[in-house]
Amino acid sequence: MAELTHMIDSEVFLAFSTYATIVVLKMMLMSPMTGYFRLTRKAFANQEDTSLVSSTEDKKKMVRVDPDVERVRRCHQNDLENIIPFVVIGLLYTLTGPDLSTALLHFRVFVGSRLFHTVAYVLPLRQPSRAVAFLIGLVTTSSMAYRVLITALYL
Amino acid sequence: MAELTHMIDSEVFLAFSTYATIVVLKMMLMSPMTGYFRLTRKAFANQEDTSLVSSTEDKKKMVRVDPDVERVRRCHQNDLENIIPFVVIGLLYTLTGPDLSTALLHFRVFVGSRLFHTVAYVLPLRQPSRAVAFLIGLVTTSSMAYRVLITALYL
Amino acid sequence: MAELTHMIDSEVFLAFSTYATIVVLKMMLMSPMTGYFRLTRKAFANQEDTSLVSSTEDKKKMVRVDPDVERVRRCHQNDLENIIPFVVIGLLYTLTGPDLSTALLHFRVFVGSRLFHTVAYVLPLRQPSRAVAFLIGLVTTSSMAYRVLITALYL
Repeated sequence: MAELTHMIDSEVFLAFSTYATIVVLKMMLMSPMTGYFRLTRKAFANQEDTSLVSSTEDKKKMVRVDPDVERVRRCHQNDLENIIPFVVIGLLYTLTGPDLSTALLHFRVFVGSRLFHTVAYVLPLRQPSRAVAFLIGLVTTSSMAYRVLITALYL
Repeated sequence: MAELTHMIDSEVFLAFSTYATIVVLKMMLMSPMTGYFRLTRKAFANQEDTSLVSSTEDKKKMVRVDPDVERVRRCHQNDLENIIPFVVIGLLYTLTGPDLSTALLHFRVFVGSRLFHTVAYVLPLRQPSRAVAFLIGLVTTSSMAYRVLITALYL
Repeated sequence: MAELTHMIDSEVFLAFSTYATIVVLKMMLMSPMTGYFRLTRKAFANQEDTSLVSSTEDKKKMVRVDPDVERVRRCHQNDLENIIPFVVIGLLYTLTGPDLSTALLHFRVFVGSRLFHTVAYVLPLRQPSRAVAFLIGLVTTSSMAYRVLITALYL
């Protein structure tokens, strides 16, 4: 990490910015998707939210747990648990000055695995589709973390 | 993103640091607030936590779900789902070299919307107060993401 | 924050990179740990996941909540709520140009407190072990946030 400041003006940094933004936007999309399912399934977490769909129906019954809503929420939670570590470690990895082609490989594999993970979770696809997508993402981030540690280790 | 390193020494970066720190501190405050409600409502998630309030009462009954605790926890979760993306995309946005006034507008609107969101969730205020606050935050972060992508796109 | 770009090439930044990567890797380990408990306890969140362990047993019964799985998940959630703020504020703190020894003290105390927090949560240890570990982490991140605000304040 001798010349970190040079890295910030590199193509690797542009690539990181692009893929990180895409995968974070994908994660953010889970919120409106949850909202869509809550509205169509009439399954809310808060009493006051029921007024968004009706002022006449029995509102108490709409504060309930719906399996489709919970599925989207678990997918969102899995995104938080995996995409945020990718962004943090990916930024530090970018600053270690990796080859552009190696860096692109990491970014593309990770983002691809998470896009597929979402499809596999929401549809859902038969296992082990989702488990494999999850593991590929985990291994990709770990590979970047390994490079950060061997390059920057300072305890 | 031709001269990213210059951006790090800019007023936009100072503004980003300030607003990001404020909104992350606000998010961190949800933990003590959850703790406060758990202690006062005597509603814990773990058996061992009940010893924090009593050594004589029936501890089994204190491992339970309380509506006030759950409300604060949902607010905290919504913060994680929205404030973290703001910080990630806001940092990249800052490095694209936006006008100071445009950047300040984004940061202030986002932080303001999240402060209002917390008030609307915890009290709670009547809907669509909270829904509007959530949407304003989402649009603000998306607007910054758009600028990152048109400036840095490298696939 | 007059010479931020110099800070990126500093030992403080190397130390931050190291400790942030270590503590994020620790957080990522909670996912496989959850998976391990789900597989051994046969307690899944999705119907399709039950095919990972059996094709003959009663699969409906395996979509259930298990106390050991939930404990690990709460620990993971607490990590998200505390480690992500540390990473965000720690990065900005690093750019304020703190003394190396002061910075190392913050990073080591935080990472140590979170490692102990995980042990205290998963075993579990008697309270207030976990509560103290949590509070030490919170105070450490707040101390770094304070320095960011007094150095960079730009509203």
